[in-house]
Formats: sequence, structure tokens, C-alpha cells
Amino acid sequence: MQFLKDDFLLNNETAKRLYSAAAKLPIIDYHCHLSPREIYEDRHFENLTELWLEGDHYKWRLMRAAGVEEKYITGDGTPFEKFMAWAGILGGAIGNPLLEWSHLELRNSFGFDEFLNKESAERLWNLAKEKLKDLSARSIIRESRVEVVCTTDDPADDLAYHSLMAKDETMPCRVHPAWRPDRAVDIEKTDWNAYINRLGEASSREIKNYEDLKEALLDRLEFFHENGCRLSDHGLARIPFSGMSEEAAAGIFEKRRAGKAVSPEEAEGYKFHLLQFLGRQYHRLGWVMQLHYGVKRDNAERLYKSIGPDAGGDSIGDAAPIGKLADFLNTLDRDDRLPKTILYSLNPQDNGAIESVMACFQQGPALSKLQHGSAWWFNDNFAGMLDHLTSLASQGYLKGFVGMLTDSRSFLSYARHEYFRRILCRLLGQWVEEGRYPRDEAALKELAEGICYRNAKEYFGF
Amino acid sequence: MQFLKDDFLLNNETAKRLYSAAAKLPIIDYHCHLSPREIYEDRHFENLTELWLEGDHYKWRLMRAAGVEEKYITGDGTPFEKFMAWAGILGGAIGNPLLEWSHLELRNSFGFDEFLNKESAERLWNLAKEKLKDLSARSIIRESRVEVVCTTDDPADDLAYHSLMAKDETMPCRVHPAWRPDRAVDIEKTDWNAYINRLGEASSREIKNYEDLKEALLDRLEFFHENGCRLSDHGLARIPFSGMSEEAAAGIFEKRRAGKAVSPEEAEGYKFHLLQFLGRQYHRLGWVMQLHYGVKRDNAERLYKSIGPDAGGDSIGDAAPIGKLADFLNTLDRDDRLPKTILYSLNPQDNGAIESVMACFQQGPALSKLQHGSAWWFNDNFAGMLDHLTSLASQGYLKGFVGMLTDSRSFLSYARHEYFRRILCRLLGQWVEEGRYPRDEAALKELAEGICYRNAKEYFGF
Amino acid sequence: MQFLKDDFLLNNETAKRLYSAAAKLPIIDYHCHLSPREIYEDRHFENLTELWLEGDHYKWRLMRAAGVEEKYITGDGTPFEKFMAWAGILGGAIGNPLLEWSHLELRNSFGFDEFLNKESAERLWNLAKEKLKDLSARSIIRESRVEVVCTTDDPADDLAYHSLMAKDETMPCRVHPAWRPDRAVDIEKTDWNAYINRLGEASSREIKNYEDLKEALLDRLEFFHENGCRLSDHGLARIPFSGMSEEAAAGIFEKRRAGKAVSPEEAEGYKFHLLQFLGRQYHRLGWVMQLHYGVKRDNAERLYKSIGPDAGGDSIGDAAPIGKLADFLNTLDRDDRLPKTILYSLNPQDNGAIESVMACFQQGPALSKLQHGSAWWFNDNFAGMLDHLTSLASQGYLKGFVGMLTDSRSFLSYARHEYFRRILCRLLGQWVEEGRYPRDEAALKELAEGICYRNAKEYFGF
Repeated sequence: MQFLKDDFLLNNETAKRLYSAAAKLPIIDYHCHLSPREIYEDRHFENLTELWLEGDHYKWRLMRAAGVEEKYITGDGTPFEKFMAWAGILGGAIGNPLLEWSHLELRNSFGFDEFLNKESAERLWNLAKEKLKDLSARSIIRESRVEVVCTTDDPADDLAYHSLMAKDETMPCRVHPAWRPDRAVDIEKTDWNAYINRLGEASSREIKNYEDLKEALLDRLEFFHENGCRLSDHGLARIPFSGMSEEAAAGIFEKRRAGKAVSPEEAEGYKFHLLQFLGRQYHRLGWVMQLHYGVKRDNAERLYKSIGPDAGGDSIGDAAPIGKLADFLNTLDRDDRLPKTILYSLNPQDNGAIESVMACFQQGPALSKLQHGSAWWFNDNFAGMLDHLTSLASQGYLKGFVGMLTDSRSFLSYARHEYFRRILCRLLGQWVEEGRYPRDEAALKELAEGICYRNAKEYFGF
Repeated sequence: MQFLKDDFLLNNETAKRLYSAAAKLPIIDYHCHLSPREIYEDRHFENLTELWLEGDHYKWRLMRAAGVEEKYITGDGTPFEKFMAWAGILGGAIGNPLLEWSHLELRNSFGFDEFLNKESAERLWNLAKEKLKDLSARSIIRESRVEVVCTTDDPADDLAYHSLMAKDETMPCRVHPAWRPDRAVDIEKTDWNAYINRLGEASSREIKNYEDLKEALLDRLEFFHENGCRLSDHGLARIPFSGMSEEAAAGIFEKRRAGKAVSPEEAEGYKFHLLQFLGRQYHRLGWVMQLHYGVKRDNAERLYKSIGPDAGGDSIGDAAPIGKLADFLNTLDRDDRLPKTILYSLNPQDNGAIESVMACFQQGPALSKLQHGSAWWFNDNFAGMLDHLTSLASQGYLKGFVGMLTDSRSFLSYARHEYFRRILCRLLGQWVEEGRYPRDEAALKELAEGICYRNAKEYFGF
Repeated sequence: MQFLKDDFLLNNETAKRLYSAAAKLPIIDYHCHLSPREIYEDRHFENLTELWLEGDHYKWRLMRAAGVEEKYITGDGTPFEKFMAWAGILGGAIGNPLLEWSHLELRNSFGFDEFLNKESAERLWNLAKEKLKDLSARSIIRESRVEVVCTTDDPADDLAYHSLMAKDETMPCRVHPAWRPDRAVDIEKTDWNAYINRLGEASSREIKNYEDLKEALLDRLEFFHENGCRLSDHGLARIPFSGMSEEAAAGIFEKRRAGKAVSPEEAEGYKFHLLQFLGRQYHRLGWVMQLHYGVKRDNAERLYKSIGPDAGGDSIGDAAPIGKLADFLNTLDRDDRLPKTILYSLNPQDNGAIESVMACFQQGPALSKLQHGSAWWFNDNFAGMLDHLTSLASQGYLKGFVGMLTDSRSFLSYARHEYFRRILCRLLGQWVEEGRYPRDEAALKELAEGICYRNAKEYFGF
């Protein structure tokens, strides 16, 4: 095989056949961090640095590890200098998905099929300058055959751009909001009270107690639902579970509302009850609940102070409590109020345990009501994806998997769907070559196409 | 390679040669959950659903994940409907051991070598109907070349069927009981007191205090030993270790005996001392101690209420305390009372740590006195077995491994020994092909045959 | 491929080409436990047992698992009997690095290229007897093309042999001390006070309080620096982090100095502050800080009492606190006092988390200021090394890796560098064969040579 050629990652014949069909399918990008405004306004980009390096803390981390000085990463270096710094170190990132993603992006969006290094960098810079005239948020989405995009939105958001896009007949894809209520959940944060005020304004009510909060959230849930939202997302250090009563949790809400600090146990009790309330609403509305957990954020104070959040200072957190995950799900399931749920843990050592917990709560007629979300963030690489797929297949029902998402801020990142589809087809093909699955091309094609496209469409109801 | 043909999983020539010898060896199934009564009475089966799907919560979990409704899993669907539901979803379980086991079972016991799906299902149903006339518990055991079966038995059990089988000259294999005293250990359970009463009756003594308990257990240990028992088994959430004195543990026994609840710390202290007592007895009797840990049971209350235990609601539990495992073993070892011991953790992330702890207590002249038990339950699959074998080989002495067990309730599950032997031979062969081991066929054959058969025979003294 | 021949482990053409260059590079063995005295005095060895089996607890553990009695391991068996016991069991250790290392050592140092077993053992014994006449500590170092050795030294050590070696023009390599202050850190140990007295003597001052301790350590740091030390090493059960003030830590020092016991929390507070102090000094001096953690030592009291420490009774410890690791590093980094740091966890499940934490603190212009140390101790095997390299490449910048070290007490163990280089080249070549990296031989050679030699030279400043 040659670097990034047609058979990239496809080391067997079955894989090649499966991928040739999978490659043509549309993309349902059900979880990302694209800006609704930039999609609506069809953002254009001055140069490759603006499109490719700004705001991409994956790349920043790699540049720092490669010894690039901050000036050429987030500092006052010129766009061209920053681009050259990146181009100069990328070739050393063998085995890192950034090397592969980046070259896929360059090939797919700019027709650049050289190896990016100091020598070829300037050719790319000039080529991109030319191509960027015709490239924009919408054109990339169109070219990438994206059918649905789900952004990530705050409950207090007015969804103005979503509303505009819903009426815009020139849109290349449908754009749905997704409900991400972290700021209402994170009661220990310093700006929590200010946020609750803002949420109150968004729902035109004063939020004095826990009942008010629930009313406000119900309003906003309705509003999001009307605007096409069909899934939620939670970012959590760990899944909360607590023996605390809901009254006590309401008391903690009032205590914090009065400006007092709460203990970690109090915060966990509050979060547990709020998430239980929300989970029940998602079930009622037919939404999907996404739980992203196992992160430790903003580890490097110096970086945080100079650049802010999302600067590359986050990491995997301590081992997540598997027992609490099971108990949390059970509290919703025991009176049949568990919504469709996607679990993502940032710690790859949780894979096996997640599959085993999930399987306890599966329930027809939904195809794989509980899902183990695609390898996430630090695991979103060749080995991590293979581990995730192998783990899911070993304990669960691979055919029901809803597949890939970009989880990205970048318009170029649809190449990750290509990367995923190639790895999936490679693995399916390998199992066939090893005699672990019959050469039943129809069954295999159905499997691959379901995971690449159809399952997500049906699971979310898009 | 073709699906499930002769060279199934055997991707190199050395593997094929090794497996052709290993395939012919008898089976020592030293840990399973078969019913002694069904073996003795030579149970027959009406149809494939009765033989294959009833009581098999592995299959139930897969069906639920595949979106099958409970009616066709454990509900009031007809046997044929349930069979068709299973046949309809199995093909989507690519990479799941159930797909491979199931087809091995069909091929070995029914001569069915098609891919099971909606189209072929009825042919299988009718074929099985015919074949089931001649198939029974004993005939399957005979055909599978099983030499020894160890069942799993409660200390209060009268071993009536074992005793009958010991005198029965028509038996296809020897059947030994195994000692599983979980109900005496699990002091926090609601039916513990009732069980202790039952244990008292079985040993014809009233159990009022901890000394009585030990006396009763000593009686039953003798009785089991006389009836051919040579190994014990413990199912534990985690390995107990405590600084509590034995007197204090005796006090906790009396407190609970008086109907009072005990705290988690009290329960752990009691369990620690009881297991230490039992471990010393196993050492005296020359028995093997099996420790299965890392499980969280009955996570889904709704499932539990409608179907009961062993319904598919169990999962991997939180990370097991490696330090306590080491300290538990040391407390037996320090005065040389550590029996031969097999460790099984349900959490695959414990593999490396288990090997490293085990090696601290190895002691000749036994060949691998401590064993890391074969990949268990949720790990009993292609990737899980390779991980276990690789981990054991990397840190330990693979040649001493006692190999596979079924841990199953199903008479068809001897196919798992075939699955294991193929994976083992594949791995050994691969190491040879990579130049990591010489082409010394005699040494390799001795290795493979030891692990597939001879080591277990010698380790347990069967 | 044939066992241990030229293409050992090199399963692709790129790997073979890369290794043929990498094989010729010198060795920078930046962390080992060789005796400075034995290097200086050019120790000779009576027989293979003395050179090969004495003091090697890796081999002892394997022998115990293989059922060898202690008499022939550490007992009063003759050297020949011990050698024969080892030779008799080694062939069963398929998949264990000891089998591969041992044969590499025999081939490289004795020209013995047979498979070692009972049959060939006596030929080796006699061959070795002959060859050992010309073999010595220095001759092995010379033959292995070792350029730098860093030993592991106590702050109270007088570095007499290092000082002699610095002036010795016949030395085959440079030998630097490395600073390992564990005995000053481990405040809970019974001999801590005696050690602090010794440290006081070494720095000619009475150590009464925490300030005295810091002064004494500063003296010794200067002395080590003058004697060529450029790196430190810490052996820790876990990375300490505490909210305790430095004054409180100083109080705990005095309490323990007065002979009183300290609680685990007090010990952690003291360790945290002492390590923070030391870390800042390492930063000032331009040293590298090595943190080895995740060990549980001396698990088997019986073994410890009969043989002592380092007898094969150590294991992986409970999961290390990732959060504390991040917070520990942040406390140094927030005022830019974090030295170059190498992290080694004994628990392989920490790999992914370590990469993710490390990346938060990377900072140019150093090439990979933070390093994930090569697979350590129980992980220093084929699978463990591949896991480590894959994990590092997936999340980090493989090109910046400082590569292998022996961490060994044995002069023969340079074969581990060969083992590492072969695995590295195999992996790089595999990525090329799979099309994940272009066939850019110059870039690949630069990568491989950097990791095998040049990066360490530049990172440590040797």
C-alpha cells in the first residue's frame, strides 16, 4: 500500500470492496462543535492557517511536544510562520492521527497529494491560497456529502442561526441544534449563578429554587425540540450517583443560589438529581442522551492564564466509577424512563466495562438502544478506533452501532469519517479473511452501510 | 481461510500442525455450571430452543442489543419464534464469540455447516429436530471426549447425584463436585441467616457462633473431599482484606446471626477471615482455590424483578484492589498455607497486575502453583483470550498454564475448548513464524498439549 | 523468519533497512543499576551463573513459576545445578522476553546460537567457561558500543568510583551518577531517621529541621552536579499531591525526626513538598527528573524474610492517581519551574492517561520536554513495548522520544537495546507498509536514529 492512496488502510480485498460502497454514503455528523453562525454566513478563510490551525488544540499540543515555541503556535507569529512551523514538524508525527487526518484533508479539499514537510510547504501555501477563493463553510459541507450536522448549544441560546437555516433553501445540509446544559449542571463553578440568571432570562422567569430551574429547563427543552433538536450532550468529569433525596438536592441548589460554596458530595447529589430529571425528559421527548465523561480539564494553569480554556491543557481523568454508571442508568431504567443513551469515556481502559454495563439495559425494539460512542478525543486514532470496535464487537452487537462523529470545530474534519470508514472496512474484511465470518457480501455490505450511515439516521430519527 | 473450516483461526503452518494434535486430546472441564442431575439422568431436549437458548443469558443480552423484544427472548413467544428471532440477528454479531461458538456447536453436534440466518434457519430447526432424538447430555459429553467434569456445588448439597454417578459404570466421564461456599460468605445478603440454618442442618449441628460455623464447614469439607472434590470456587465482588482481628470477625458473625445489619467494613472483615480459614483448609486438603472477582451483579432492577438473577443484568465492577489481592495471598503464604490458587478478574485491565502479583508467590515443586485463569465471561472472546495469553506469557510461564474451562450451563459449550485450542495454537505458531521461538516441533507440541490437557490433569490431581 | 537470526522481529523490508542503520549506533544507557565499583574494577566472572543468574530476580520469578525449587534458585545448590535448572525451564517461557533476551545475550557475548535446553546446556556451560576468561565488565561495555552509562546513586554517596572513572583514560565509556533520593523521601520507613543522620554526615551538618534538610540536599546536589550528574530518579508508590502548606510539611519532618510515626496523609504532604523543592532544583540545574511509580514492593513476607528485598516479591500497585500526577506537574509548571521530566508508570493501563497529561505541559524549544519512559519492568516485553510506542505515537510526538534504557543490574543486558531497536524498526516499517507513512527513507532514518541514540544525547546534554 502507498501512503494515502486509494487503498489507504485497506489491507485486504473484502475491505476494498466494502469501502468502495461505504465511501459514497452521505455523512450524518451527529455531534460536532461547528459554529451555526459560520455555517449560516458561509464563512470564507484568508489562508490555510486561519482555516486549519486557529483554534485547533490537537495541533497545538503536537507542536509543543515537537519543540515549537508558543510564538508560532498561539503567539504573535505571522500566519505564514505558524503554517511553516506546523509543516516543519508534522512529518515526525508518525503513528499520530493528525499526520493522517491532515494529509487526507489536504488531498480531499486542496488536491494536494505530496508529503507535507519543509520542502513542500510553500507549494501547499500557494496552492491553498488559490483554492481558498472558492472554498467556504458551505462548499466544504457540500463536497463532503454531509446530510445532517448537529451543533452543540446552550439551553439559553436563542438558536437564531438554526432558525434562519431552517428556512434557507440554499443550505447544503440540515443543521440541528443539540442541547448541552453543562453550565446549569456545574454548580461548583464560579460563574454558575450568573449562568442561572441568564437561563432565567432566556425562559422569562426568575429562578429562585430548584422547581423554578426545572420549569425553566422544561421551557427551553420545548423550544429546542421545536427547533429540531433530537439529542442532548453532557460533559462530565464522572457519572454522578448519590443516595441523596431530591429535596436535599433542592436545598443545595438554594444554598448555592445564595452564593455559598457546596462540597463535592453536595455537588454530586445535585448533579445526580438534575441529570435524572433531564434523562426523564429526554425519554419523554424521544431524544438521545449523550454522556461524555472521564475528562480532567485545564490542568496547566500557566497555559490557561495565557490562552484560556481549550488551549490543549486537558487530559484523561482518574478511572471512572463503573458502579456509579450502572446505578445511574438503573435509576432511570427501573421505571422505564431510560432514553436512548450514548456513552463515551475518555479513559480507554473503560471500554470493556462500558460494554458490559450497557448490555444490562439494552431493550428492543430499538436497535442498540444503548451505544458505546466512537473512540473519543485522545482515543480517536488508529489503535483507539480498532480497540473500540473490537471491544464493542466482542461484547455487543456491532451491527447496531451508530458510527462516527467529528466532535470538531473545524470544517475540514469530515476526513475523519473517511478515516473511520476505512478502519471499519479493514476490520470487517480482516475477520472475513481469517475465516471468522463467511464471505457473505450482502450481509457485510448491510453491516458496513448501517454503521457508516443508516443506523445513525434511524437512531436519531433524522 | 474459510468460515469455520478446518483451518479456522489457524493462520500459519505451525498452528495447523499443533492444532491437529491438540484437537484429539480429551477435555478436562474443571469449572462449569452443568447440573449433576441432568448429567446423571441423561437429559434429552425437545427442540433447539430448549437445548440452546433457555437459560443462556449471553444470547439474551445479544438479542436485546439487536432490538429483539423480550417476548421472543424470555417471554411467552413459542420455542420456534424464539429460535427464529435468534437466527435472524446472529449474523449481525460479527466479531462476537457467540457467532463463532454457535456455528461451531451447530457444526460439531448437528453437522450443520451453513451460515445461520433467516433463510437457513428453518432447515436447521428441522435438522435439529431429527438429530435431537439421538442427542442427550451424556452423548454430547461422550462425543466431545470429556474426561472430567467439575460441577459447582453448595456446601449444604448432599451430592446425591455425584454419589450415584461415582457408582455408575456407564458414565462417559468422571464428574467431581466443586465447593462453592458463597452463600456462607455473603453475610450482607438477606437470605444469609436462612442459609446458615440450612448449612447447620446439612452438618447436623446448630450454628450459633463463628466456631460452630467453622466446625460445620470442616464437616462439609470432609464430606466433599470423600466425594471426590479437589477444588473450590469463590465468586467475589472484590478480594477482601482487613486489619480486623479474628475475634472481631466472630463478633460480626454473631451480630448478623442475631438479625442485625453489618457495615461494608464489617462484612469485609468477616469475609477476609472466613476466606483465610477456608484457604488454609484447601491447603491442608491439597485442593485448588479458585477466586472469581470483579463482578457487579443484578444492575438492572427491572430485569431482575421480571426474570430474576442470571438474566443478563451483570457487568464488570469497579477496578479491583490489586494491593488487597497481594495482601490476601501473603497472609496465607507467610506461614506457608497458600493453596494452589487460580485468579480470575472480570476486569480485563487487571491482567498485567494479576501476573505481577501471582509471580511473587510462585513456589516449586508445583508447576505454576498460582494461575491466571483463562479469560473469563465478558473476556472469553478472541481478543480477550489473546490478551490473556499474551499477558500470561509476557510476565509468566505459559508452559505451566492449566488452560480452558467452559464455565457454562450448556451441554453444547465444549466447542469453547476447540475455540481456545485454535487460538492457542495460532498464537504459538505466530511466535514461531516471527522468529521469536525456534522451530522445535517437539517442544512446541509438549507446550500445546500441556496447556490443552496434561497440566490440568496434573494440577488438580485428576 | 528464523529464531534470533539477522531478521529477528523484522517482518518487513523497511524495518530491515532501518535496523541495519540503527544497529550500528552507540548506546546511551541513561538509567541502570550497574555498580560503579564493578565497572571501575572491571569485574570478572567465575562462571555463567555468577554473571547471569545471581541477583537477577526476573529469572528467579520465572524459575519459581516453572516449579524449580528455591534451592536451585537462591539456595545452596551449586552454580552448575542452578544453571542447569534455568536451562531446563527456559524453553517453556515462550512469549516471555527472558527467553528472547537470554538468547540474544548468549549469541552476542558468547557466540552461542543454539536453543538453550537440557540437551544443549552443558555445551554452553563449557563454552562460557572458556569465553569468560576474556570477558569482563569493561569488555562487555566496549563490545556493546556503550557511550554513556548513568548509574543510580544515593545523595549520601561519596561518588568515589565515579571520581576515579572520570580521571581514568582507559574507560570504555563515560559513567555519570544519577541522583536517587528515595531514602530521604520515604519518611514512613523505619530506617529513615538513621538515613537522615547519614545524609547529615555526608554534608557535614546536623539535620534538625526541614530547612537543614534542604540545605544538606542543596550541598549534595552541587556535589553531584560537579561529578557529572545530569538526572535524578524517584521510585514512588504513587505521585504525591497535597493541599498541605510547606510549614505543615516542615512540622511533620520534625515530628518524625523526633521518632514519632506519621500518618499516610502526613507522609504524602511531606513527600509532595520535598519533591516540589527537588523539582525546582532540577529545573535550576538543567537536570532531568525521572518519576518511576505504581509499584507495590515486598509483597511476600516469607520471601522477604528469607532472601531480602529485590528477591522477586514486587508487583504492580493499585491504579495510580492520574489527577494527582497532573496537579503535581502543574504546581511546578505554573511558575515555570518544571524540569524536563520522564514519567514511568508500572501499571500499563496508565499509558493513555500519561500521554494525555504529559501533552498539557510540553513546551518548546526542548524536543519533547516531557517524556513517557520506555515500557518499564513488567512491561518491558514485546507486547508492552509495542503498546507503549503505539500509545506514545497515537497521542504524542514519537520523533522526540529518548528511547531505551536497561534499568538493569546485569552487564549482559545491553541486548535489551537491540531488542528495543528491532521492535521500533519493525513498527515504523509496518506503518509504512500499511500506507500510513510515505516511503521517505531519509525521514524514517532520521526518526529511528533519533529515538535510538541522538535524542537521548541531546535531551540529557551528554
